[in-house]
Amino acid sequence: MVLLILLRHGESLWNRDGRFTGWTDVDLSENGIAEARHAARLLRDGGYTFDVAYTSVLKRAIRTLWIVMDDMDRMYVPVHRSWRLNEKSYGALQGLNKQETAEEYGAEQVHLWRRGYDVRPPPLLWDDPRHPRFDPRYAGQDPDALPATESLHDTLDRTLPYWHEQIAERLQDGKTVLISAHGNSLRALVKYLDAVPDEVIADLNIPTGYPLIYELDEGLHAVRHYYLGNPDEIARATAAVAEQATVPRG
Amino acid sequence: MVLLILLRHGESLWNRDGRFTGWTDVDLSENGIAEARHAARLLRDGGYTFDVAYTSVLKRAIRTLWIVMDDMDRMYVPVHRSWRLNEKSYGALQGLNKQETAEEYGAEQVHLWRRGYDVRPPPLLWDDPRHPRFDPRYAGQDPDALPATESLHDTLDRTLPYWHEQIAERLQDGKTVLISAHGNSLRALVKYLDAVPDEVIADLNIPTGYPLIYELDEGLHAVRHYYLGNPDEIARATAAVAEQATVPRG
Repeated sequence: MVLLILLRHGESLWNRDGRFTGWTDVDLSENGIAEARHAARLLRDGGYTFDVAYTSVLKRAIRTLWIVMDDMDRMYVPVHRSWRLNEKSYGALQGLNKQETAEEYGAEQVHLWRRGYDVRPPPLLWDDPRHPRFDPRYAGQDPDALPATESLHDTLDRTLPYWHEQIAERLQDGKTVLISAHGNSLRALVKYLDAVPDEVIADLNIPTGYPLIYELDEGLHAVRHYYLGNPDEIARATAAVAEQATVPRG
Repeated sequence: MVLLILLRHGESLWNRDGRFTGWTDVDLSENGIAEARHAARLLRDGGYTFDVAYTSVLKRAIRTLWIVMDDMDRMYVPVHRSWRLNEKSYGALQGLNKQETAEEYGAEQVHLWRRGYDVRPPPLLWDDPRHPRFDPRYAGQDPDALPATESLHDTLDRTLPYWHEQIAERLQDGKTVLISAHGNSLRALVKYLDAVPDEVIADLNIPTGYPLIYELDEGLHAVRHYYLGNPDEIARATAAVAEQATVPRG
């Protein structure tokens, strides 16, 4: 039996402000920092630890990880960063206010952009300064392979190779792995681990700041999973995420 | 021409208190945090950046690196940790007060333990709880290969393989490398890069918190090196380090 710990980063400044974030490198809010601290405490109090950590190249996930490593006195643990664990790209919606976007395009359209398994938001244009090809952190990547927008399906397709080529091997060695990542890259992993059908994944929500523990067998099949923390608080946090994703006012 | 940036971590709690630290995992002091911030500002103001970072498995070097990455908005850069960049092991002296040790064994003996190129402090006994074989961060290492004490020569001998096998390759790829490490692991690298004779290295001091830039040619030979920062302040900081290493009062 091996353990996998999934952790969705705490609230970011744009989560707080209700803006689409995606690949934009927005930092944690004060509340998000407190959520990361709380996650570390839950892991510590539960007697959990980890041998290796994976994260995205976005600072809200990296800072969440740093806080957990620091508070658990495991700053020495190896960390691997990859854009393949980044949040789903929200394309041209990135930076827009969610409420205003819903007023302009309709709540149903925004819900589809956010949660439709195969629906992509409008893409960033090739010359849009927000296009990832202009960001030095992706300088080593083929610009044509960088997403201008993504569906959850696309996110899954670029996350899974990293799982198979990097993460799975560590788990097979018996290492406990912590992944500090994003709502949609984690939903992609959960969809894979639990074989969640395409039409069900839209309603699966992962709250910020509550460690999600997977127990895996030797073949890395999920045996069971559970959150750490107070069940009522987790239910409230999950409902809050779900609500964000459904019909906004107006 | 490729760039290598060496950075000695800021003051630790035991530096401040005058205790031998070595492989003990002591955190930065408030002053050490400020020194790391200052180093980041010097790099930023000088227009320097880095593509990959190396550090030890000790939190004073890791936290220094984190502060620099954060302040330079480069949290996404790959980081590699290795015990081969750790501080020189001070063996059984670790945790002892430097002043009291000098009073007991004599200032000259302490100076040799600290700075003699081939002199090792008294070793940690095999069953001493401070022996690195009991520390989970070295669980993957052969316990017999973990040092119970080290001379600077020993430190060089375990640091250089990491340079040749890992760091040199990145530099040859044209990457700018930042190494956030310790007084003696950095002195070992400097001794190698500048072919400093054994009898001269004792008098070579590296101040905390001032980035030391090496310009290397294609064969990774040092062409020139220089510190960033105010020359008077650097001279004072270097003299302070040198003084620590010479005859203490009593």
